[in-house]
Amino acid sequence: MNTIFNHIAIVGLGLIGGSLARVVKEKKLAHKVSAYGRTIERLKKARSLGLVDDCYDRFEDRLHEADAVVIATPVGIIEEQALALTPYLRKNALVTDVGSVKGPIVSAIEPRMPQETFFIGGHPIAGTENSGFESSIAELFEGRICVLTPTRQSDAGALERVRKLWAAAGSSVVMMDAEVHDKIVAAISHLPHMVAFTIVNAIAGMKDFEQNILEYSAGGFRDFTRIAASDPVMWRDIALMNRDNLLQTLDFFTRALEDLKNAVSTGNGCRLEELFRQSRDTRRGI
Amino acid sequence: MNTIFNHIAIVGLGLIGGSLARVVKEKKLAHKVSAYGRTIERLKKARSLGLVDDCYDRFEDRLHEADAVVIATPVGIIEEQALALTPYLRKNALVTDVGSVKGPIVSAIEPRMPQETFFIGGHPIAGTENSGFESSIAELFEGRICVLTPTRQSDAGALERVRKLWAAAGSSVVMMDAEVHDKIVAAISHLPHMVAFTIVNAIAGMKDFEQNILEYSAGGFRDFTRIAASDPVMWRDIALMNRDNLLQTLDFFTRALEDLKNAVSTGNGCRLEELFRQSRDTRRGI
Repeated sequence: MNTIFNHIAIVGLGLIGGSLARVVKEKKLAHKVSAYGRTIERLKKARSLGLVDDCYDRFEDRLHEADAVVIATPVGIIEEQALALTPYLRKNALVTDVGSVKGPIVSAIEPRMPQETFFIGGHPIAGTENSGFESSIAELFEGRICVLTPTRQSDAGALERVRKLWAAAGSSVVMMDAEVHDKIVAAISHLPHMVAFTIVNAIAGMKDFEQNILEYSAGGFRDFTRIAASDPVMWRDIALMNRDNLLQTLDFFTRALEDLKNAVSTGNGCRLEELFRQSRDTRRGI
Repeated sequence: MNTIFNHIAIVGLGLIGGSLARVVKEKKLAHKVSAYGRTIERLKKARSLGLVDDCYDRFEDRLHEADAVVIATPVGIIEEQALALTPYLRKNALVTDVGSVKGPIVSAIEPRMPQETFFIGGHPIAGTENSGFESSIAELFEGRICVLTPTRQSDAGALERVRKLWAAAGSSVVMMDAEVHDKIVAAISHLPHMVAFTIVNAIAGMKDFEQNILEYSAGGFRDFTRIAASDPVMWRDIALMNRDNLLQTLDFFTRALEDLKNAVSTGNGCRLEELFRQSRDTRRGI
């Protein structure tokens, strides 16, 4: 018996929410899966595809039936959605989220949860440059890491149920402080996205070519810039919400780039080879 | 009848040279394919694998039999190899190369070619982060662009034969000035590699984490940094040989990054969204 929840409600049925719905149904992790969102027509389409059992556009409809609520909206509105739905939670209901920034979300939501309801911050590190439940797959979380960011106030039973959910979805679940999480993702996810966005813009902005030079891009460049096609609104919100950590990693990157530029401009082949060898060895180690 | 050459000699049997040998043999583009290199044991292994018909470690051996010579060594020694082999060329022999920088190579080699021999600079835009003929495949050039950089002195017949070779290997052949080529690759290839090397080094250098944060990297980061595992010596030479163009694109990139950092630090969501949207639209257009 795999069932962890009776009725799981997913708020925001995009790539992550849709993929979670699929794996919950496929592995029977809940008796019922429902979806909440603003556009009922879209949700009905997901229902007709079998992703969810039912769908609603107002929390007052049936949210009180859910023993678990996963907020999988764009990260910029997770806090707002959490506060909007708390009045309709049943006793002992568990709320979690999938936002890629954790500090501001956890500290905004946790203290405002009603008595005898629980909030656990979560971040499944999965996803592609695609969005929408049309791109969702039940295997999205397989072999991935899911970070949970409990606080000293977190309920142990609630934490364990969220852990079970992501473990059952195929992820390795790691617990850490929200602040540590935000520093780590600033480095390994937010910085690379900023750099990818910037390099595509920089190259597109080079006006001294008569032709579209992007035509000459080989496989390396395509892979390199794939993440530059990610959702602009989501990334705007991530950049704003994780601003301080992001600025710190951007500064760190800028200094490393100055080091490289200096080696190029002085023709320091030894230093260049050393830098490239370091990078290759690190990359091969991943 | 596909045959373009009688005997094609490939100097440097790595990923590019090996893949070219494979496609030449597979499509019978020459009656004989031979390989030249410093380590005869490696070449013999390639011969035993059927990549080439014969192999030599000295140009004086049989280079005078070749009507076409392709220099596929690391870019940093192409000039040196070209000058070392010219004394052994037969009349009407054609020499071309596959270096990813063209200006310095063409201007060094072309004026020093013996009478009645021909040099055409070339750059098949193909390759992966792997190297060595063990990674070679006959399909490497399929659907790719190959740039040729003839000059006003180039022999039209020689140029046509090189064009035919790469077209038969499956590439779209484009002709342009060596200087234009070098500016384009600085932007779409050399800059992204420098950035990938730097981001991996920057993240590896962040010492304020107790754990190896690269473990948390998702697919996006892996794809993004794949090119950071490229050959350090090759990239050292590319950076040095295309220094001025590379510095210019690095400056361009740095300015675009400052623009982004400014939007992050001032919390300018509109500007961030605009930048990310621009980048997504450009990337989708590739």
